[in-house]
Amino acid sequence: MREGELLQHIYDRSASLPRSVIVGPGDDCAVVDIGGAHILVATDQLIGGRHFAESETPTDLIARKAIARNVSDIAAMAGTPTHTLCAASLPEEYTHADELFDRVHAWANHFGCPLVGGDIAMTAGPLALAVTIMGTPHADRGPVLRSGARPGDHVFLSGPVGASYESGWHLGFEPRIALAQRIASDLRDRLRAMIDLSDGLGIDAHRVATASGVRIEMEAHAIPLRDGTPSWREGVRDGEDYELLVCAQADAIDGLVRIGRVVEGDGCVVREGDEVIDVSVQGWDHG
Amino acid sequence: MREGELLQHIYDRSASLPRSVIVGPGDDCAVVDIGGAHILVATDQLIGGRHFAESETPTDLIARKAIARNVSDIAAMAGTPTHTLCAASLPEEYTHADELFDRVHAWANHFGCPLVGGDIAMTAGPLALAVTIMGTPHADRGPVLRSGARPGDHVFLSGPVGASYESGWHLGFEPRIALAQRIASDLRDRLRAMIDLSDGLGIDAHRVATASGVRIEMEAHAIPLRDGTPSWREGVRDGEDYELLVCAQADAIDGLVRIGRVVEGDGCVVREGDEVIDVSVQGWDHG
Repeated sequence: MREGELLQHIYDRSASLPRSVIVGPGDDCAVVDIGGAHILVATDQLIGGRHFAESETPTDLIARKAIARNVSDIAAMAGTPTHTLCAASLPEEYTHADELFDRVHAWANHFGCPLVGGDIAMTAGPLALAVTIMGTPHADRGPVLRSGARPGDHVFLSGPVGASYESGWHLGFEPRIALAQRIASDLRDRLRAMIDLSDGLGIDAHRVATASGVRIEMEAHAIPLRDGTPSWREGVRDGEDYELLVCAQADAIDGLVRIGRVVEGDGCVVREGDEVIDVSVQGWDHG
Repeated sequence: MREGELLQHIYDRSASLPRSVIVGPGDDCAVVDIGGAHILVATDQLIGGRHFAESETPTDLIARKAIARNVSDIAAMAGTPTHTLCAASLPEEYTHADELFDRVHAWANHFGCPLVGGDIAMTAGPLALAVTIMGTPHADRGPVLRSGARPGDHVFLSGPVGASYESGWHLGFEPRIALAQRIASDLRDRLRAMIDLSDGLGIDAHRVATASGVRIEMEAHAIPLRDGTPSWREGVRDGEDYELLVCAQADAIDGLVRIGRVVEGDGCVVREGDEVIDVSVQGWDHG
């Protein structure tokens, strides 16, 4: 069973959740009501050999990526990160544990979400960091979900896609917290839907289309590509871009590139001349 | 470097945390202020081959233990669990993923803290579940910390210790949520300190003594032992008891066994006749 399928089963089981769960599994973050406060929370793992090359990656960049990936999930809701927890599985022979936690601590502070809890265990497997991040929704706009896109919206990207792993971008990307908050403040309810691109523009845009019950059409020539990306076809499926895909009732948004539009229907396609290419499964099925 | 040492480094780094962090790393849960609400949060891992026998343990009991361990951390603060997240690392050849998540979901509901988020990744290592739990502190008493024990308090246990792994108790224990809440409601500020026993009575009682700046003295004959535990010496170091150790300004507490007292000084000892045995390192250094 693929990860995406597994996650779908999890979402299906969560169909009837208590009222304190405002947004359950299936978006970038959950939104829960605890003691009257609305809280964003998400968890994500970084696994050696899968999300970074264990022998080559500096400890500082492993720690940075573990935190930044989670911060990016908060950005995708236009929220503010507040606190972090980190559970680490360390190979028995691992010798950089203290440095690793020093850097996790430092990066959590850097992104404004200090480390408040953790767990350490030894493992026979690769180095793995499971990070949980908490945050607050945008005060005026509230959490921006994947499900809000409507026909007539335009589709925007916060930066280029492709070649993230090869270029090292996946270790040094800047989560789009400030940008997301500015857009949410400016557009309010005209900001309809957002997601951060972790698994590939194709698969992630399709998640927005599915959650919103709409179709997303992108123009091949409009998709901005990172240096080293041969064509838009690699760009939509490489993954680990950590840029925001934004659907908004707006013709232009300062700092973003317009790449397509939301229409009635379903699926996610790229138009190149007369060709219409289905990209809804283009990417990594990281779940 | 041992896990306990590593964690101490983490606590040291967290000495100056922002005001939103009411209790930082080093207790059973962190307590954070988000949007004016006080929230308990903790993270803990369950690793195949370390916390359960991978080939022999039914999927249902793996899921139960992963959730119940975290619920026990909320119990140790006298809190109420509200929401859960679960990040799973699955071996490539693992075939029970859907059943595992079905049971994680069911047990999270059972303990009143529905699963609101998750992450799944494949790993070359053993099955590992990193669970994060959120909760609310006791409405009247507030969170019960490890640091509140004072000379003159008595020390109590909520149940027997020892032989947890051999007896299967570690898979089927009942987190002491209701008991902890009743004690907190009854005793209020006379309930001074609590911890749940995961690493062994010796090492865990010593954590309370250290956090509180006191000495804990227990009576060998008073320590209740699970069937199959040869003597108190095994009982204080076996670990995985998931009972509450309670320090309170009370001579007796309904449903608990009095096993010792808090005095001035430091360390943690067991008295047996004229002998005084240091048990402060008796247990598993799981951190």
